[in-house]
This record gives sequence, C-alpha cells and structure tokens, in this order.
Amino acid sequence: MMTDELYPVEPWHIRETSLDLSILDESESIFALSNGHIGIRANLDEGEPHSIPGTYLNSFYEVRPLPYAEAGYGYPEAGQTIVNVTNGKLLRLLVDDEPFDVRYGDLLEHERVLDMRAGTLTRNVRWRSPVGKEVKVVSTRLVSLDQRGVAAIEYIVEAVEQFARITVQSELVANEDLPPTSADPRVAAVLNRPLEAVHQESTVNGAVLIHRTRASQLMMAAAMDHEIDVPGRVEVSTDTSEDWARTTIICGLRPGQRLRIRKYLGYAWSSLRSRPALRDQVAGALSGAEYTGWQGLLDAQRAYLDDFWDCADVEVEGDPHIQQAVRFALFHVLQASARAERRAIPSKGLTGTGYDGHAFWDTEGFVLPLLTYTAPYAAADALRWRASTLDLAKERAELLDLHGAAFPWRTIRGEECSAYWPAGTAAFHVNADIAMAFERYRVVTGDDSLELECGLKVLVETARMWLSLGQHDRHGVWHIDGVTGPDEYTAVVRDNVFTNLMAARNLRAAADACLRHPDAANDMDVTADEIDAWRHAAATVHIPFDEELGVHPQCEGFTTLREWDFTANTAYPLLLHEPYVRLYPQQVVKQADLVLAMHWESHAFTPEQMARNVDYYERRTTRDSSLSACTQAVMCAAVGHLELAHDYTYEAAMIDLRNLHHNTRDGLHMASLAGTWSALVAGFGGLRDDEDVLALDPRLPATLKRLKFRLRWKNFRLTVDVNHQDVTYTLRDGPDTSLTIRHAGENLELKTQYPTTVAVRPIEPLLPPPQQPPGRAPMRHKTSG
Amino acid sequence: MMTDELYPVEPWHIRETSLDLSILDESESIFALSNGHIGIRANLDEGEPHSIPGTYLNSFYEVRPLPYAEAGYGYPEAGQTIVNVTNGKLLRLLVDDEPFDVRYGDLLEHERVLDMRAGTLTRNVRWRSPVGKEVKVVSTRLVSLDQRGVAAIEYIVEAVEQFARITVQSELVANEDLPPTSADPRVAAVLNRPLEAVHQESTVNGAVLIHRTRASQLMMAAAMDHEIDVPGRVEVSTDTSEDWARTTIICGLRPGQRLRIRKYLGYAWSSLRSRPALRDQVAGALSGAEYTGWQGLLDAQRAYLDDFWDCADVEVEGDPHIQQAVRFALFHVLQASARAERRAIPSKGLTGTGYDGHAFWDTEGFVLPLLTYTAPYAAADALRWRASTLDLAKERAELLDLHGAAFPWRTIRGEECSAYWPAGTAAFHVNADIAMAFERYRVVTGDDSLELECGLKVLVETARMWLSLGQHDRHGVWHIDGVTGPDEYTAVVRDNVFTNLMAARNLRAAADACLRHPDAANDMDVTADEIDAWRHAAATVHIPFDEELGVHPQCEGFTTLREWDFTANTAYPLLLHEPYVRLYPQQVVKQADLVLAMHWESHAFTPEQMARNVDYYERRTTRDSSLSACTQAVMCAAVGHLELAHDYTYEAAMIDLRNLHHNTRDGLHMASLAGTWSALVAGFGGLRDDEDVLALDPRLPATLKRLKFRLRWKNFRLTVDVNHQDVTYTLRDGPDTSLTIRHAGENLELKTQYPTTVAVRPIEPLLPPPQQPPGRAPMRHKTSG
Repeated sequence: MMTDELYPVEPWHIRETSLDLSILDESESIFALSNGHIGIRANLDEGEPHSIPGTYLNSFYEVRPLPYAEAGYGYPEAGQTIVNVTNGKLLRLLVDDEPFDVRYGDLLEHERVLDMRAGTLTRNVRWRSPVGKEVKVVSTRLVSLDQRGVAAIEYIVEAVEQFARITVQSELVANEDLPPTSADPRVAAVLNRPLEAVHQESTVNGAVLIHRTRASQLMMAAAMDHEIDVPGRVEVSTDTSEDWARTTIICGLRPGQRLRIRKYLGYAWSSLRSRPALRDQVAGALSGAEYTGWQGLLDAQRAYLDDFWDCADVEVEGDPHIQQAVRFALFHVLQASARAERRAIPSKGLTGTGYDGHAFWDTEGFVLPLLTYTAPYAAADALRWRASTLDLAKERAELLDLHGAAFPWRTIRGEECSAYWPAGTAAFHVNADIAMAFERYRVVTGDDSLELECGLKVLVETARMWLSLGQHDRHGVWHIDGVTGPDEYTAVVRDNVFTNLMAARNLRAAADACLRHPDAANDMDVTADEIDAWRHAAATVHIPFDEELGVHPQCEGFTTLREWDFTANTAYPLLLHEPYVRLYPQQVVKQADLVLAMHWESHAFTPEQMARNVDYYERRTTRDSSLSACTQAVMCAAVGHLELAHDYTYEAAMIDLRNLHHNTRDGLHMASLAGTWSALVAGFGGLRDDEDVLALDPRLPATLKRLKFRLRWKNFRLTVDVNHQDVTYTLRDGPDTSLTIRHAGENLELKTQYPTTVAVRPIEPLLPPPQQPPGRAPMRHKTSG
Repeated sequence: MMTDELYPVEPWHIRETSLDLSILDESESIFALSNGHIGIRANLDEGEPHSIPGTYLNSFYEVRPLPYAEAGYGYPEAGQTIVNVTNGKLLRLLVDDEPFDVRYGDLLEHERVLDMRAGTLTRNVRWRSPVGKEVKVVSTRLVSLDQRGVAAIEYIVEAVEQFARITVQSELVANEDLPPTSADPRVAAVLNRPLEAVHQESTVNGAVLIHRTRASQLMMAAAMDHEIDVPGRVEVSTDTSEDWARTTIICGLRPGQRLRIRKYLGYAWSSLRSRPALRDQVAGALSGAEYTGWQGLLDAQRAYLDDFWDCADVEVEGDPHIQQAVRFALFHVLQASARAERRAIPSKGLTGTGYDGHAFWDTEGFVLPLLTYTAPYAAADALRWRASTLDLAKERAELLDLHGAAFPWRTIRGEECSAYWPAGTAAFHVNADIAMAFERYRVVTGDDSLELECGLKVLVETARMWLSLGQHDRHGVWHIDGVTGPDEYTAVVRDNVFTNLMAARNLRAAADACLRHPDAANDMDVTADEIDAWRHAAATVHIPFDEELGVHPQCEGFTTLREWDFTANTAYPLLLHEPYVRLYPQQVVKQADLVLAMHWESHAFTPEQMARNVDYYERRTTRDSSLSACTQAVMCAAVGHLELAHDYTYEAAMIDLRNLHHNTRDGLHMASLAGTWSALVAGFGGLRDDEDVLALDPRLPATLKRLKFRLRWKNFRLTVDVNHQDVTYTLRDGPDTSLTIRHAGENLELKTQYPTTVAVRPIEPLLPPPQQPPGRAPMRHKTSG
C-alpha cells in the first residue's frame, strides 16, 4: 500500500522512505524517467528484484497477430506492441564476492527521491552484506530533456567501516525475460525475445549493441560509455555478446573512499536508416553527453524544467496532497511529451507497457489541453505526429466506405490496432477530438502556421468523414447513427450528444479554416458547395433532449433504457463482471460522456441543463474509466458542487500516487494526470475556450485556501491567483500590452502593466449534491485543516 | 457448374451423368447419406480424388480454443467442432497392379444416382486401366434408417473383355488428412489428427478401431465386416494398425465374372460408456446388419421411406426443377433428423463441417415446421435434445445476469459457442424460436405429453428470461433493448418487431401452459403473480410503427436510418465487403426479419400492412443469408406477388442443387431446404398455425399447374390438392371423422368420408411487384412451359 508514511507529502518531490517490495511494481512506474523519446522504468540499478523491466523508445514496436474466433471485414489483422528495448540502466555491484541484492544481507537505509525541479531520480542506500561489509550507494539517474538520445547515471559506492573489494558490472542487456503479457501463445511468442542481434562492438570502457525487431523490422542501437573516478588502482574491461555488453570495473575501497561511475547511454532507432548510421548516431549522442559532462547534463535538465515550471506550475494552498500530485502530473506529462517530436504520446507515456503502448484519443482530449497552455511546442509536435498519419487514416476511411479520414482508436504508428470495433472503430468521436485539438492549438496559441502546415488537411478530411457518416432524415434533421461515445458501457447508438456536438464543431471549424486558407482549400478540391454542406449538417444536427425529465439523454433514447440494478450488481469495474450484451442497453455509464460534452462544448448548454444533467449522470456513472473523475470534477465545480469537485480532483490526482485503479504497475495514466490539471484549472479556475475566447470563472471550495496557476494565451503569459473573495489576473508579458478575457461571463481587459483583481462570482447550486452509485462516491480529499 | 445436362431433372432421383472433378466438392455434399446419427459424404469409394473426406457421428465433437484479441466478460472460451471420424467407406481397387483412379486410364462411364425412394446412392463405372484392362464397378451405399448404427456398401467389380487379377482393399481409416479449416494454428492443431487410438482388433474378414478425442474425451468405435461372393479362388486377410484397418480381397476374374463385396459398417460413440461396451455395441450393430442381410437392409430402407413419402410428399406440376428439388429437400431433412434421437440437428445436417457442425435457431425455426407436419417423432426428438440442454441454458442466463434460460446461438452439445456476441448472444430471439417450436409441436400434433415431459420447463424458463431482459418504461410500455433480430445487418437494437412479437407469444404460451399443468408449474415455483407479469409484459409490448410511411420498422427507428447506397455498394454478400460498423446503422437487410415476423406471427398484421411491409423490405433485402429466400417466397405469395414468390421458391429450392451460395462443399443448407417446403406449403398453400388452428389459403402462380401436399394435423392425415380454380382437401384418416380447418379465412369442416373441394380465393395485390436491390432480383424459375 502506498501510504503517506511511505510516500510523505512534499511539494516538489516524490520521496519513498523505505523499500516495500510489495509495491515495487507501482514504484517502477511512479519513478520512471522519460523525455518522450527514451523511457526507463525505475527498476533497481542492480536489476533484481523487479516487477517489469522496462526501457522504451517512443514508437519502437513489434507487430503481433490479432486473433479472432469470428473475424469480420475491416478488422485489423495485426497489432503493434511497444517493445522492451536494450536495458542500459543495469549496474550490478559486488562487495567482495557478495552480490548486492536488497533481499539478502541487511538493508539499513533505502530512499528514492524524484526531484521534479531537477528532473532526476536519486537513490540512497546503506547495505550490510551477509558477511557484514557495509557500503553506501548513491545513484542518480536522468533521461535528458536537453539531449534527446541521452540518459545518464551517476553511481557512487562508498565503503563504510571496512576495506572492501568493489566490483561493478555495468551492462547493456537485450531480450530480458519479462512476465507473460498475453494468454495467446502466438502473441507471447512474438514478444518473447523480440530483438534479433544485428551488430555489437566494444571498447575498454563501453559498447554498442544493435538489434532489430523480427516482424516490424525496426532497428535500434544502444551504447554506453563510462567515466570512472576512484582513488587507487582500478581495472576496467568490457565484453560483449549478441544480447549483452558488460563493462567490469574493479577496485578496492578503504573506509570512506568512494568509487564514482558516470554511465552515459545513447539510444537511437529507425525504420529507414542503416546500421552504420545508427551506430554513429548513438556514438554521437555519447560524445555530446560526455562533452557536456554529468554536471552539464544536470544543469541543462534543471534549466529546461525551470523554464517549464515558470509557466506551468499550479499552486494549491489547503491541500498538500493535491499540491504534490498536480506537480507530479505536470512533470510526467512533460516527460511523456517533451521530446516525443512527431511520435505518439502513448496513454501510459513511456512508463510501462499498458494498452500495448498505444496512443488513444486521450492524447488530444486530455493531454494536449495541458500542453497547449503550458508547453505549446510539445502540443504542436504531437499534432504533427497525428497529421503525419493522415494518409493511413484516409486509407482506413476508404476501407470503411467513408470519405475523408478515419483516425484509429488505438495505435502506435497510425494503423488501427483495435480488435473490438464497437468500442474502437465505432468511436468516431476520436476524429473530432483530433480536429478540435488542432483548433484549440490555433485558438490558444494564436499560431496559424500549424493549421496551414498540416491542421487544415486534418480538419477538411475529418469534416468529409462526418458528412459521409451522418445523414439528413426525411425532415432534414442531421443524425449520426451507429457510433460509440466516450462512455463504453453503451455502444453503437444513435445521436450520441457528445459525438454530434463535436462533429458539428469539427464541420464548422473546417469550413472556417477553408475561408482562412482559400488556396490550400482549393488544392484539396474543397468547393463552396462542400463547405455549405458542412455548415448545413452542423446547423441541423440533432441534439436529443428528454423534455419530461429536463435532461439530455447521452444518446437517443438513453433516458428510457432500463435502469441498472445498483442494489445487486456493484462489482466494479462492471466490465469485468457483466457482459456487454447487458451493459449496453442499460442506464449505466462507465465514464463522463454527456458530462464531458458539457465541459468541451459548454456553450451548448444552459446553466439549468448543466445542473440537471450533472445530477442525472452522477447517479449512473461508475467511473470505471480513469478518464472520468477529472471531468466530473470540472462539471461539479461548474454547477456549484465544489466539495464534490474537490473530491473528484483528489481522486484524479491520486490515481497513480495511490494506485487507485490497481494497475499503476502497467504504467501511469497520462490522461488522468493531465486531468488533475484540468480539474483545477477548468474546474476551480473555470477555464473554457470553446468560444475562441479565454474564459475564466474561478471559485474555490471552502476546503481550499488559494489556487494559483499559469497559462500561455496567444503568446501572453498569464497568472491567475484565486482565493475565496477575489481573483488576481497578472498579464506577465505578451505581444501586446493588453488582452481581453472573459471573467465570469463578462469581458475583462487585462494590462501587462499591472495586475487586475476582481471579485469571484459566487454560485448557488440549483440542486443538492447528488449521490453516486453504491460504492462509487469519490474518495474524500484530505485537507490539511 | 452444376447444369441440367450434368444433373438432369428427374422427379425421384438426383442423377450425375458424368464425373466433373471441378464440382467434386459440391457433389460430395449433394450425394451425402445420413440417418441423423451417421453421416457420410459422397467421397469416391477409392478415396481419391477428394475435396473433403467426411464421416460424421452426430454430436461427436472436439473442443477448440476461441481466441480473442480483446476478450470480454462472458465470452465463451471454448468452441465445439464436429470431427471427421473413422472412414469406413473406403474400398480401393487394383486391376492387376494398377490402382483404380479416375484421374488415370480412361473413364468410359461414370454415373451416380441418389434414389430418394430407395435411400441409396449407386455408382456405375466403366474404366479402362492405363494398360487397357477394362472393368465395370457398381457400388451401392446406404446409411440405414432402420438400424441406427449401421451403414453398408455393396461393391461389385466385373471384368469386361480380359482376365484381370482384382485386389480390393477395404478399409477403416482414422485421422485422414483434411484441408485446413482455420488460419489459427492452435485451432488447426486441435483438428489435425483429432483422434487418439484406444484399441484395435481384427478377424480375417473385418476389424474394429476405437479412438478418443483428446480434449472432449469422447470415445468412438467403428467396425467393418465383409461378405464376399466370387467364382473361384479368393484370398482374404485383415491387418490393423492404430489408425487403420485393411481387409484385402484378392481374386481373378474372367470376362463377365464378378466379385461382389458387401461391406457392413457399425458405428457408435459415447462420452460415458467403456471401451468394451463400445466394442460390443459396434459388434452388435454388425451382427444385426448381417442377420438382416443386404437385401433386408434395402427393403427396410425403402419401407421407411415409403412411409415417409406417403405423408410428406409434395407434388408440383409445372415446374420439374422445383418438383425434384422439394423431394431432394425433404429427403435430406429427413436424413438429418430421422435417427438423431436427442442430438442436435446441425445446420448442415451430417453432410459437411460448415459452421463447425453447429445447430442454430434454424433447427427450430425452419427445419422443425417441416418435421412437425411430416415426421413428428423426429421433431419431438429434436425438441427433447434442446430440452436436455436446459441446465446449460440456465447457467448461461445466470452468467448474463438474467433469470431463466438463455439458449445458445450456436452449439453442438448445448454450450454457447458463438465468439461474436452482437450476432450471437444478443440474438435472444432464439429462445422464443425454441419455445414456439414446442408450442407448434403441441398445436400441430395435438400431443400434450411432450409439454409435460419437457416443454413446460422450456416455456417457463424462457418466459422468465424475457421478463428479466425486457422493461416497462415510465409510461408502462414494455420494451426489449439491446437485441439482434434475424437480420444480422442491424444489431443490438431497441424493440426488434420480430423479437418483441415472439417474446410476447413466448410469455403468453408459458402462461397458458402453466394453466394446463398447474402441478408441474407449481413444482417450478411459478406463482400467479409471475404469470400475471408475463401476461402484462406481453399485453404492453411495444411494436413500433412508422405512421408516415405506413410500414413497420424492423426495429425502433429503422425506417429513419440512412439508406444503403445501392448505386455504389453491391458486392454481395455485403458482409465480406463492408464492415459491421457501417452495415448496422443503415437500411440494408441481410435476411427476412420483419418479413419473417409476418409469416410466423401473421395475425399481428393487417393485409395492407403486409403488402406495404413486403414492398418496403423487398427493396432493402440483399438475401445474403440462405434463410431469406424461402420466407420472401411465403410473404410474396401472401400479398399476391405470385410470380415473384415462384422465383424465390426456385431460389430456395436450388440453393444446393445449383450451389447458389458457393458453399455447398461445406455441407447442405438444411434450413433453406426445409424452406423450400415452407415456400410451397406456407407460400402457395397459405399454411399458418399461429392461431392454433390449421389455416390454409392456397393459390398458385400462373406458372404452376397444380400443387399437392400432405400434412399431419392432430393425428389426421390430410392431403391438399390445389389448382388455379379450386382446392381439394382430403382427410385421409384420423382420430375422428371430421376436422374443422380454416380455408381462406373461413372455417371449413372436412370429413374423412369424402374429399371437400372449394374455390381458391383470388388475391389482387395492393401494390405492383417490388424491385429488389441491384443484382438481387431472384433467379427466374424455369417453368416447363
């Protein structure tokens, strides 16, 4: 169990005060380091014990078969699975002839600290060997945010009271044994030892291993080199084999003497480049790292992060758990995306193999809002990646007998990898989520160039898809049938409100973008008639409403479906205990769907509708998806259930830090982490941007004293500082001296010269706080009191 | 191609005039013999060439894994697959030292004749070996309808012009090599050599082989013995090995001399009985066969069939193709069911391995109506099989969080084997189809005993399932959501009309049956309240109707879905060219659904509704299922499109005789064959029984001269003889001297003493004959002119 004792609540660190092997698996994810290109799980330096050994390179995957007992037309036949690549973080230690292993001897001290300003993971160990020799080990790891292909480890061993002969074996290891990932023997076979050796070479101090995946034919190189500092004699040698390289360092230490090893790692992969090119690329990465030096890498790491925090930090007074957690969230989202550079941001970042390392709509829907407001260059790169898959999405649309482009539900490289279409292909909303992420980027950054570079094509092709998917009925109303909204407990429905609103916005946005870029639109054969058709569909879209109940059904007829029997069936998550054939036609909701529509398309709902809808769906939402709590936080805050919003924020924040979904071992939940930011900024901050204006409407629950957050808006840097009475907007700098925002529904002009303080708008909730399904009330937040 | 030249149209025979190896696969199914317990494909006596070697024992199956790339709760993990058992029909011939093989030497004559009154397949061959020796071979096969475990072959070889040394190797062969049946290597592995040898023994003249399946652990025994008749010296010996036994017969024949071998085969299998018990069982079968002798078996076969034809034959004047085909249909349906005796009737009978040898709702919905009117003992046995699986259906319902029983979509032994729930588990109508088959049996035969024996339990448990699946909305209307009707191109819908009507009937039938058997109902804890709830649900069931169009949507909203683009997408069957995600939400119909509801629940529709509904669905039905043409025939006849009905009847009739679905190689389409009978009897005969009275309303298309069919009704035997002017009803015999039927909507009393002739009621179609989708007009019938 991850407790406050084991993981004390500190504002800028995640500290583990002792080693609890029962949660080793979770800690491997929590302390994972990444720059979006390289990811390393927090496996112990000495390799064992471990839960899941993990070293990942973004988008380096193997192809695996997708089996179907009953196949159907258009089902993808091959999936993509992230591969555990050559492990360079291994440093085995022998004290005299005893291998250092925390399971033997006496572990006198064991602390790990993730420093979110330094960007390092430090481990402090004091260990007494079974024969009584005591050593201190301090290791510090980083995956460089500054040098994309580089990771580095400083490893210091000190003899404490007696002389000790110290041997360190620093390794590169390919094809590590992993826990089985699939019950299907064919899949397991593909992922068992996925790398075939291509090349290996070594010097005295280091080595290079080059491997290739069998089916996807991707080549990767890993290289290591070492700087060694020790008083007295030291012997260094390196051996290599097909699947490993080992640099052995031997010396003797008198009490107080220290052996310091700085291990530099270079990684690269390519689907195109040759073996020599990759070999030289990792050698170059090592050269760069060594030229910069260990301290230089540390300094660059901190500088990168200082710059990030300066315009991303969120300060929360009154709830130290959430304070720590939102920084943890921002840090990991940055790690997942900083240097992804036109690769996908997977749903688990590079912290584990959950969901096969796939990226979903989570990226555009949950992760990119945070990045767009705090690290827009990373958001732009993620969008460029998505746009780079447009041709594959067009092929998929053609296969589906649709026009335009149909982006995949889950993928690494761009091909659809979902083997269950009712919750995959049918979730067409992913296309609007992607299109709207381009639109959000343009609106928030004020940067039109990405639209011209690639966003327009995505807008146009997704609009074309929607027009071919939807239809006007005999009364001229536009419907979209046979789709699945965000809620995966009701699928293949008519007129999902979320989907219809998002599709209509996608259509309008495409039409507007074509007017902004008429030549480019012309190059895509967009005609005035086509634009008219988009606008007409958007204008006539059907948004079902249940007049009797005064709420929006999440899809046509939803509010008339059978009610779920929450007196009997409450084994969560329901999908592990109930078949889809029963879940789908009942009023039970896995995750915010209509409620998410009210966040993203807030202008389409009146305050009374919002209040009644929140009340209705709260009672029927099981939150069996990690994507739900953050959105429930946002909308509970919007309708005035501020304490409940605080609880949901806490739940979103702690999902990984307290392993609430029992699967943190498989990697961190990037969307829910990003959702923690949304819960605070869009929930208590009231941030909305769906009407192309920066709208804020902050208000705090009684349990929080103060909330301060930073944003970028059209190249302005803005700070929002909220307490119970008022909010102070500070326009730090920008392209102009003033900016008009919307505060509590009214325009407000901000000036760079001085902060502007205005009163918060109190809200009286229309309805009392709603009940959740039995057992599904959110965990109560722990305020400091 | 199966042409009229190769397969001349004859009333009582299927004759193949020469051997066309390009259609060997289809002929293996067409000429298959079976008694419902043993099935043998028409592989050539000498074994090669073959398409699919096939010998089957009803319900003898192996278990295979069902793989899922993304599994879900309640998905079946294991499937059942019919196994090719020990082949006893092999008789290899050597002429001097040349093996008889139709691909070598000169095949001077090759004819095969299926005699539907004799119940035999006869083959006449004249062959000249590569060195010029000519022989005649006449083989005759039967699978005994009289002796359930027995098949027999008479094999006669005659030397024509020169002396020849004749060697016949008569064999039992287990684990024959088969064409691959699955792309999944695990599945292929299971079905490759599925039998493990348990025991083998031999005498001079014969042998027994006993094998067992590896996973399902079913044991089977096959035995052979031979009677040999030849002038002069003959040597006979038998060898056995684990997977084969071979009796070798060697003799010399002078021109005109003949070797006659009569090979008797005994088969048995069991999941319970011991090896000695099975060995003795097949020995006993052989003893019985030999005691009866070849001629005795032939006589009994003909007597059995005479009895069947006497009350099952359908005479069609004016269309010799349909005349031949309906007898072919009746013959094969009888073969599939005659001695099935509490085993399933698979959708392909025992003629091939299509659909893994599974039984579907086809059995109760299409096959049993024919059997109930013509061979009620076989219908009763099929119903007893289904009832024997009730406990498995109750377990399945519990897994699905439903009350009562949920019968499987596809199975051999009773467990759900469908790996795609939207077209499997969601097709809950199967439960009503089954319940209604019990009800039909009771109404048609007048026999209440089966209901008390097992039918009541099925009615009650299916009624309980419906009540737990459906729900009353806030206005008290009863809905069933999330189900798939017969049309598999629109799935997981609200208020499928077919399903709702059938469920309501199931509920009422259960309520009525409980009143008939109050003590038995009490034993099942049926209360008056429960019965009231059933009746209330049935009384308030929602039957959607599109008032604007004046037609029934096949499910809620169906008539407002997007229209299928038949100008662009007409590659049939659509399911091989379009994904479900696009098929489901469009107005395109795989097979009669609402139209089937109008046949089975005819009382629920007005004549005008029927006419408009037929017109509406004809334009949208692709007939991509073999279950559709027969129902379209019935309903086109009902609304007066008699020529179109004739075309559909022709299509249903020729589905296998002309391989219209290109998969006759995998086995015959039992439901469509039975549907040929329905097309004639319910279509042109107007037979309905959904109001518990025998209703007839015959009328012929101009293209037919006369239709005469026979029925059993409450132990009466009845003949209906129709021409264009009038219909003559003959009550041949029965438990009483009179019977009141409904003719053309009016009561009519028939007497056993004399035939009753009345005028046919002409019908003026309300609408002109409808168009079908492009390329989907039915094949035109070929009338004799």
